[in-house]
Amino acid sequence: MPIASKIREAMERSSWIRQMFEEGARLKAEFGADNVFDFSLGNPNLSPPEAFRTVLHELLEEDPPGCHGYMPNAGYPEVRAAVAAQVSCDQGTTVGASQVVMTVGAGGALNAVLRAILDPGDEVVVPKPYFVEYDFYLANHGGVLKTVPTSAEFDLLLEPLEGAINPRTRAVLLNSPNNPTGKVYSRPSLERLRAVIERKSAELGRVIYLIADEPYRNIAYEGIEVPGIFSIFPNAVVCSSYSKDLSLPGERIGYVAVNPTVAETETLVGAITLTNRILGFVNAPALMQRVVGRLQGTTVDIGLYRRNRDRLYEGLVEAGYTCHRPEGAFYLFPRSPIPDDVAFVRILQRENILGVPGSGFGGPGYFRLAYCCSYATVERSLPGFRRALLAATAVG
Amino acid sequence: MPIASKIREAMERSSWIRQMFEEGARLKAEFGADNVFDFSLGNPNLSPPEAFRTVLHELLEEDPPGCHGYMPNAGYPEVRAAVAAQVSCDQGTTVGASQVVMTVGAGGALNAVLRAILDPGDEVVVPKPYFVEYDFYLANHGGVLKTVPTSAEFDLLLEPLEGAINPRTRAVLLNSPNNPTGKVYSRPSLERLRAVIERKSAELGRVIYLIADEPYRNIAYEGIEVPGIFSIFPNAVVCSSYSKDLSLPGERIGYVAVNPTVAETETLVGAITLTNRILGFVNAPALMQRVVGRLQGTTVDIGLYRRNRDRLYEGLVEAGYTCHRPEGAFYLFPRSPIPDDVAFVRILQRENILGVPGSGFGGPGYFRLAYCCSYATVERSLPGFRRALLAATAVG
Repeated sequence: MPIASKIREAMERSSWIRQMFEEGARLKAEFGADNVFDFSLGNPNLSPPEAFRTVLHELLEEDPPGCHGYMPNAGYPEVRAAVAAQVSCDQGTTVGASQVVMTVGAGGALNAVLRAILDPGDEVVVPKPYFVEYDFYLANHGGVLKTVPTSAEFDLLLEPLEGAINPRTRAVLLNSPNNPTGKVYSRPSLERLRAVIERKSAELGRVIYLIADEPYRNIAYEGIEVPGIFSIFPNAVVCSSYSKDLSLPGERIGYVAVNPTVAETETLVGAITLTNRILGFVNAPALMQRVVGRLQGTTVDIGLYRRNRDRLYEGLVEAGYTCHRPEGAFYLFPRSPIPDDVAFVRILQRENILGVPGSGFGGPGYFRLAYCCSYATVERSLPGFRRALLAATAVG
Repeated sequence: MPIASKIREAMERSSWIRQMFEEGARLKAEFGADNVFDFSLGNPNLSPPEAFRTVLHELLEEDPPGCHGYMPNAGYPEVRAAVAAQVSCDQGTTVGASQVVMTVGAGGALNAVLRAILDPGDEVVVPKPYFVEYDFYLANHGGVLKTVPTSAEFDLLLEPLEGAINPRTRAVLLNSPNNPTGKVYSRPSLERLRAVIERKSAELGRVIYLIADEPYRNIAYEGIEVPGIFSIFPNAVVCSSYSKDLSLPGERIGYVAVNPTVAETETLVGAITLTNRILGFVNAPALMQRVVGRLQGTTVDIGLYRRNRDRLYEGLVEAGYTCHRPEGAFYLFPRSPIPDDVAFVRILQRENILGVPGSGFGGPGYFRLAYCCSYATVERSLPGFRRALLAATAVG
């Protein structure tokens, strides 16, 4: 039965991940969901904030005519204006409604942007480890992923970044706070990258975009700065969503914002509006657009994720794991005690702990734990982590 | 500023359409929206049925934990089951929940299917005139659109269809009830097409899918049969949405159903589930999935569209226009009184009537009127149509 050959390959490559998820489902069926410690998926466990419910009811009461119909493909003007005001605060630059396109989550945002800017064979540079979907997003639009290493602390390394930029490079794609590492890039680090991009861009006579994928911007701990991308990179595009900070990943609502300093901003926004339409998104879901328009600046209680981070990080370090202490997002990316991270994730499964091998993120020798779960899950998982480490090193 | 070259071309090609929309907006600003007869967009004027509001309130009351979170990428199992039951009735074949994938409207459905089945250069045969977005949907995934003519009554012509099928053909894409013509293909006509596809498929040793894009299935008049595609074509995939029959186009909710007679159905459904994810849709919007799961079989009052069709069709014929009487959807596709349909649409604009040139649909010499508007708009537009015909033929 005919399937596109690249899609068939992707299905085959991902079949071991599916096997692991199936194994997880089997464990839950056998031991009960409460006795399986599921750190595999970035599906927030917190409910949306109470204000979400209030606004949703308000909007259903108001029920203006045509409110479930088409609106301009870029979104409702008043929603774009509300998002632009918040983006202006986040990014440290004044952004107008006409520089914002509402999208079907950050995944939809990234696909619309890549379709708009990539000619076949164009390259996008991504520090690794990286969010595994980028492979697919680039392949969808004929793009080529060029990964570059980061430091032991997952910080940007300028030399490999500079070395990866060539006449086919169209963009550098950053994700901060990062999935899977929880890393937040500092302002000095980003400013050094800006200098590299400027130099290479001048040398090659070619615009190189900075694409910032930042659905975790509002999930950062201890007041650490998540620097405004627009205040640093003139040719920047931000892709984001409300999936994580409002706990709405199933509703598929996000946005693209274009730095007003991009040359011909209007053309780029027009292109993204067109690609948002022709990729079949058409527009971001109507009701959820209106909801998030009224919830700018609202988030779930990030303190609960921080509590999980602290307990899990400390518990793992105490047990003997090596791990970067994440500054944001809700992921931990510890080093696997044995080189084979897939084998180690299977050892964790014997303790009813579900994680994801780092190999899946271009980070072999590590594993990812999503701690957007209950505190009890974190707490009760720790003995299993201890036993798994012992088992793995005894085997090793 | 760098934009993908194909996207820049698309923006330039569509700039005259944008000009026409801008002209329409200018007319509304100058004369008031009530004095402009806008037949340009397929944005249903009817509100969603009352049951939509009831179900939405019910669901907000129930508010189960995690109801805005991720669910399996193919959708909620209970929603897929409800859709499958209705699809079984529509298509005259028993379809299971595991053959349904919930999508971001029919646009999302088509993109997911094309991404799943097309290798670069694969061709898809489409009778013209056709929904203009197909050009883009195919180009998104490296596909090639092969259009074939239809009869004067917009019926399928088998000879050109058969002639267009070659070793690169992967699918025939049908849209019935049709946008822009309102045509509904009859069962005998579809059965003859099935015979052609079977013969060519055997000759070429290649599966050729029938993709049915049918968001207008429930908008058909006088009890005319919209034949079940699965009961005719064994290798069929149906793409649909609730945009038109529940008046929810802004909410982006639809589905793909795969005929269980497709070889390796599970693999094809798996591929579509994967492409739905990796194109950035991830899943269909959560709340709207649950809404439509409870509204199977419900539609807006189609009688109101029929009343518009009757008045507009009769009014135009009386005025001297030549027009196929549409059996479904909410479009009329009259012949332009002068060969240059773009020029004629500009003449209509002088009467404050907004339509779309047939050239935009691969149907030059015609124009499209979307009558999903108020009856008063239809009624009050007729004198303008009469004057425009006289003006055009006097000029001609």
